[in-house]
Amino acid sequence: MLVVKKFGGTSVANKERIYNVANRCIEDYKKGNDVVVVLSAMGKYTDELIDKAKDINPNPPKREMDMLYTIGEQMSVALMAMAMNHLGVPAVSLNAFQVSMHTTSVYGNARLKRIDSERIRNELEQRKIVIVTGFQGVDKFDNYTTLGRGGSDTTAVALAAALNADSCEIFTDVDGVFTADPRKVPAAKKLDVISYDEMLELATLGAGVLHNRSVELAKKYGVHLVVRSSLNTAEGTIVKEVGSMEKMLVSGVAADKDTTRISLIGLKDEPGVAFRLFNHLARHNINVDMILQSVGRDSTKDITFTTTEDNAQEAVEIVERHFHEYEKIDVEKDVVKVSIVGAGMQSNPGVAAKMFECLYDEGINIKMISTSEIRVSVLIGEKYAEKAMNAIHEKFSLGDN
Amino acid sequence: MLVVKKFGGTSVANKERIYNVANRCIEDYKKGNDVVVVLSAMGKYTDELIDKAKDINPNPPKREMDMLYTIGEQMSVALMAMAMNHLGVPAVSLNAFQVSMHTTSVYGNARLKRIDSERIRNELEQRKIVIVTGFQGVDKFDNYTTLGRGGSDTTAVALAAALNADSCEIFTDVDGVFTADPRKVPAAKKLDVISYDEMLELATLGAGVLHNRSVELAKKYGVHLVVRSSLNTAEGTIVKEVGSMEKMLVSGVAADKDTTRISLIGLKDEPGVAFRLFNHLARHNINVDMILQSVGRDSTKDITFTTTEDNAQEAVEIVERHFHEYEKIDVEKDVVKVSIVGAGMQSNPGVAAKMFECLYDEGINIKMISTSEIRVSVLIGEKYAEKAMNAIHEKFSLGDN
Repeated sequence: MLVVKKFGGTSVANKERIYNVANRCIEDYKKGNDVVVVLSAMGKYTDELIDKAKDINPNPPKREMDMLYTIGEQMSVALMAMAMNHLGVPAVSLNAFQVSMHTTSVYGNARLKRIDSERIRNELEQRKIVIVTGFQGVDKFDNYTTLGRGGSDTTAVALAAALNADSCEIFTDVDGVFTADPRKVPAAKKLDVISYDEMLELATLGAGVLHNRSVELAKKYGVHLVVRSSLNTAEGTIVKEVGSMEKMLVSGVAADKDTTRISLIGLKDEPGVAFRLFNHLARHNINVDMILQSVGRDSTKDITFTTTEDNAQEAVEIVERHFHEYEKIDVEKDVVKVSIVGAGMQSNPGVAAKMFECLYDEGINIKMISTSEIRVSVLIGEKYAEKAMNAIHEKFSLGDN
Repeated sequence: MLVVKKFGGTSVANKERIYNVANRCIEDYKKGNDVVVVLSAMGKYTDELIDKAKDINPNPPKREMDMLYTIGEQMSVALMAMAMNHLGVPAVSLNAFQVSMHTTSVYGNARLKRIDSERIRNELEQRKIVIVTGFQGVDKFDNYTTLGRGGSDTTAVALAAALNADSCEIFTDVDGVFTADPRKVPAAKKLDVISYDEMLELATLGAGVLHNRSVELAKKYGVHLVVRSSLNTAEGTIVKEVGSMEKMLVSGVAADKDTTRISLIGLKDEPGVAFRLFNHLARHNINVDMILQSVGRDSTKDITFTTTEDNAQEAVEIVERHFHEYEKIDVEKDVVKVSIVGAGMQSNPGVAAKMFECLYDEGINIKMISTSEIRVSVLIGEKYAEKAMNAIHEKFSLGDN
C-alpha cells in the first residue's frame, strides 16, 4: 500500500507533536506500507513570516512573499525527517524543487500543473519515508509559488494522484466530516462516508474541513480521500464516489455567518440591468454568492445579492460609484446562510419544502433562497443560526444511526 | 560595471540594517552599475536553527541539517528584495536552485563546482538588483548542501568569477585588513593593498577577515577583491596580485591563541617514526599545524607539534592509544603563535632574524619556529602575545605611512 498523509500546522507546532506525527507515520511504515507525508508550516509560523515581511514592506511583492512563505514548510519537513531518523527510520525531506512540483505563475494562488514523481518513487524504493513540503510549487521560470488557502491539502491530493496512492489521509483536529458543526448542534454525528459532490458543497459553504480545490482534484482523479483526527485513531470520514443506492437524502447542515445582504431597490424593469450591475462587481473581483431578483412596485424590480463581510463595503462603494440605476440601497450584516447538503435530494423534490416547513415551525423568517442540485440554502437572521441548524438537523434525523 | 557585494549576518540582523544595506546597494545601482548582492542568514538565526534541530535530534542527519540551514539565507534575501522594492528599485531574490549553484555532495562542507549564471544575467539585463543566498548549493541529486565556514564569502567570489565581475566587495565590521589586530596593537594601520598570498597566510592564521577558501578562489580566477566596512564608506583593502615592485617587506603581524603544543620525548632515532605518528593523527582528522623534530639525548629524538585546543585532547588520546614509541608526553596549552606575513620577505633573508632579535630584546623565549616563503611564525608563552605583537609591529615600522 502507498499512503499519503497530510498534517496541518497545529499537528507539527512543537517537538512533542512532531514526534506524535513521526510515530504515527512510522506505525504505518512498519506495516510495510510506502509512506509519503505532506506538512504545512509549524503552528503560527506563517503568521510570523507575514509579520516579518510587513515590517519591512507593508505591500511586499507577491513573488518575494512566496519566496519567504516557502521557508515555513521547509522547516517542518527538515525537522520531521530529523525526528524520524532519531527514531531509527530512514526519512528524507523534499521541497518543491526537489519533488518538481510544477505550477502556474500566479504568486500566492498558483495551480498545480504537473508533478514529477520520479524522485519520490526512488526514495520510496529505498524504503525511506518521504516528507514533502505542502502549499508550495515552482513555476516554469524556477520561481517559488504558493497554492493559496488549503494549499497543503491540494499538494497531498495531487501527490496521491501522481503516485497512484491507495489512500490520501487528511489529518485534522476533528474526527471527520459531521452532519453539522458539533459545537453548534450537540446532536451532530460523524459521517462514515460522503460523496465528492457533497463534500464540495460543504467545502464551498465554509463548513467543510477540506478546501474545495483539493476535493475537486480528488474527484477528478478518483483519489480515495480520508478525513481523520490527528489526536486519535478513529476511522474518520471517507470521501469517495458514492453509488446511488447509498446516497443519503441529506448528509449535513452548515451555517456560514460571513455573509452580508445587499439590496438594490427600484431598478428599471428592462433588459441588461443585472448584467451591468454584476459586470461592475466582477471587474472589481467581488465574489457574489446568492442572487435574487424580484418584481418591485410600479414596474420596477429589486435585486438582492450576498457577499462576504470583507467584500461588502467595497461592493457598496462600487455600486454607488459606477451603477446609478437604483432608487435605494439596503445593507444587512446580521444574516447567516444555512444550508442542507445531500446527494439524495437530486431525486427527492420534497426536501426543500421540508426545510422551509421546519423553519416556519420555529418562527424563523426566510430572507433569500438559493439551490443547487444537491444543496438548499436560506438566508435568515444571524441570531437564529443555531436554532435553525438544530431544528433542521432533527427534522432530517441526521443524528440517528 | 558589474559588482558583487557580500554582507554578513550582522549587516542584515534587523530592519534598520537591512535598509542600510539596501540603500548602499541602490546607491551603486543608481550610478548605472549592475549589482549582485550575496547575503548570509540574519544575525544569530543560524544558531536558532541549530537549537531547533538539536532539540529534535541531538545528532541530526547532515543532509537534513543542510535542508534546515538553507532557510536562513532564503529569509535574508526575500526580506532584502522586499526592502529594495519598497525603496522603488526592482530587485529579485534567488536561492541555490534558482541560480543553479552546483556543488559536491559533502553535506555541511561542500565545494562549489559550477554556477549557471544565465538566470542572474537575465535579471540584470532587466535592470534588477539580484540578491543571492550565500553559503548554500545544490548537489547533482538536487539535494541542498552548505559550504562550511566562510561559505558566503566563497559564494560571492565564485559569483564574481562566473559573472566576470569588475569587483567583489566583502563587507565586514572592520575597515579592512590591518597590519595587526587594532584591539591588541594600538599602532595597527589599515592596508590599502595586500596580495592574495599574504591574505591567504593571514586567513590561515585566523587573523584575516576572509576565509582562505574564498581567497584561494579569488586568486585562481583573478577576482578583484575588496574588504571594506558596512558601517562607513572608507575605501577598504584591495586584495589582488601585487607586482614585485610594490611588495611590502612585511605587511602584517598576527597572533593565534587557539593552539596547544604537544611534545613526545625520547623517540627512537630511526626512519618511519614521524610517519607513524602523523599517520595516526591524520586518520582521525586531527589537523596539525607546526611540526618540529629535534635530536634528544642518548640517540633518541623528540617530536613537537601544535594543534587547535579543540583537537588537543583527542590528539593526546590517539597518541596514547595507538602510538607507544615515546618515553614521555608533554602538553602545553598557554602558548600563542605569533606570525609575520609579507610577500617581500621571499627575497629578504634578514626578516626572520630581525623578528627573533626583536623578541630577544623583549626577553621573550621562542619555543618553536615555522616558516613559509612569505611567513615566519613563532610559538611563545601566551602571556607575551600582545607585548610581542606590539614590539614586532614597531620593529618593522608597520604603523608608519
